[in-house]
Amino acid sequence: MVGTPKPGWQDVPLLESFREFNVPTGLDTDVNAAALAEGRWGAARGLHTFSYVTVGTGVGVGIVVDRRSLRGLGHPEAGHQRVPRLPGSLWPGHCPFHGDCVEGLAAGPAIQARTGVPAAQLPEDHPAWEEVVHALAGLFHNLVLTVVPERIIVGGGVFGGQQQLLPRVQRALLVSLAGYAHALRIVPRVEEFLVAPALGARSGSLGAIALARQALADAAA
Amino acid sequence: MVGTPKPGWQDVPLLESFREFNVPTGLDTDVNAAALAEGRWGAARGLHTFSYVTVGTGVGVGIVVDRRSLRGLGHPEAGHQRVPRLPGSLWPGHCPFHGDCVEGLAAGPAIQARTGVPAAQLPEDHPAWEEVVHALAGLFHNLVLTVVPERIIVGGGVFGGQQQLLPRVQRALLVSLAGYAHALRIVPRVEEFLVAPALGARSGSLGAIALARQALADAAA
Repeated sequence: MVGTPKPGWQDVPLLESFREFNVPTGLDTDVNAAALAEGRWGAARGLHTFSYVTVGTGVGVGIVVDRRSLRGLGHPEAGHQRVPRLPGSLWPGHCPFHGDCVEGLAAGPAIQARTGVPAAQLPEDHPAWEEVVHALAGLFHNLVLTVVPERIIVGGGVFGGQQQLLPRVQRALLVSLAGYAHALRIVPRVEEFLVAPALGARSGSLGAIALARQALADAAA
Repeated sequence: MVGTPKPGWQDVPLLESFREFNVPTGLDTDVNAAALAEGRWGAARGLHTFSYVTVGTGVGVGIVVDRRSLRGLGHPEAGHQRVPRLPGSLWPGHCPFHGDCVEGLAAGPAIQARTGVPAAQLPEDHPAWEEVVHALAGLFHNLVLTVVPERIIVGGGVFGGQQQLLPRVQRALLVSLAGYAHALRIVPRVEEFLVAPALGARSGSLGAIALARQALADAAA
């Protein structure tokens, strides 16, 4: 492991601990693992390019291309994308790095810092939801036009606790895309494009199994 | 071809025209072709994941993963990403779809619409460059944290005509990333991370050759 802010984990050779078992191993982030599981057994079965976004204590984004999580210099941290603010909004945001990036506006701790109430207990008609919806629509707009996913799966505690949120974000995404290009193929079926996860709390452990299967297949190839 | 705004090209079966030659064929966007060429022979040789951005009459973004241009529902149109405005700026932008998306703020026609002067003739110290730099830094910030490219190549007429622009955008990107994660590995070498193209005007034709070689290799596999 490299470059983690988690105390004690910096430069820990995690995969070394498993060397004694002499089997193929894989390592990935929690959100990427959940994405791989949804791709094999869940809401993204059969898709080539898709994304899994979790909005909870942070905003995590996994991107899968051809059954593998996308990685370059490292893994995606697209929850820290910068997006336009809701016009007139001046709250500085809650991200220690960027202030009002998507995570700084829409993650659970940001919502609680702004309103004093945990996201799950915040009334549906609280005005703070407007900026959450706006920030997430900006993130999904940018994901659609960058990764061009066939589907985006949205999970995490904030969505799980607020049934109103997914349809609101679906509508805001269509408004933001403004009919552009791929939007033409998303408009009539946005409920099938931006969807809830199928595997729920099992996506993490199933993701570990998906990773292990991939490591085994890679070792055999 | 599907879903193009170019008159007369909607639903034209372009590859059909080449069927009589009975050879493998490939089709991709101009910016993706240039990206593939830079990956084989130019500024991204040997890299697994990189991006090629052109800022000219529009803002085009090609993304290459493992020698192939990334595509899902279609090709990326990440020049239409939504990013934060420069604080205090109220110009509505020039994109007919989104107004103040990146292309609506930073492409050549946007600069000319705003200032009345072609981008190449606009003085280096004109205040309009501030918003161009800010919008492009937002795009590169989002690309870094989403695609996590090992390098971003930046070309096109607007950069070609303004030598000041690349170093300004390099600095603005570091400010925007604010030391987060991968930024730690970009900071000491941003001049090698955000770079000019190596192939110049030849990238288009070399890109077509790269595409043809890929089609040939795919047919043989």
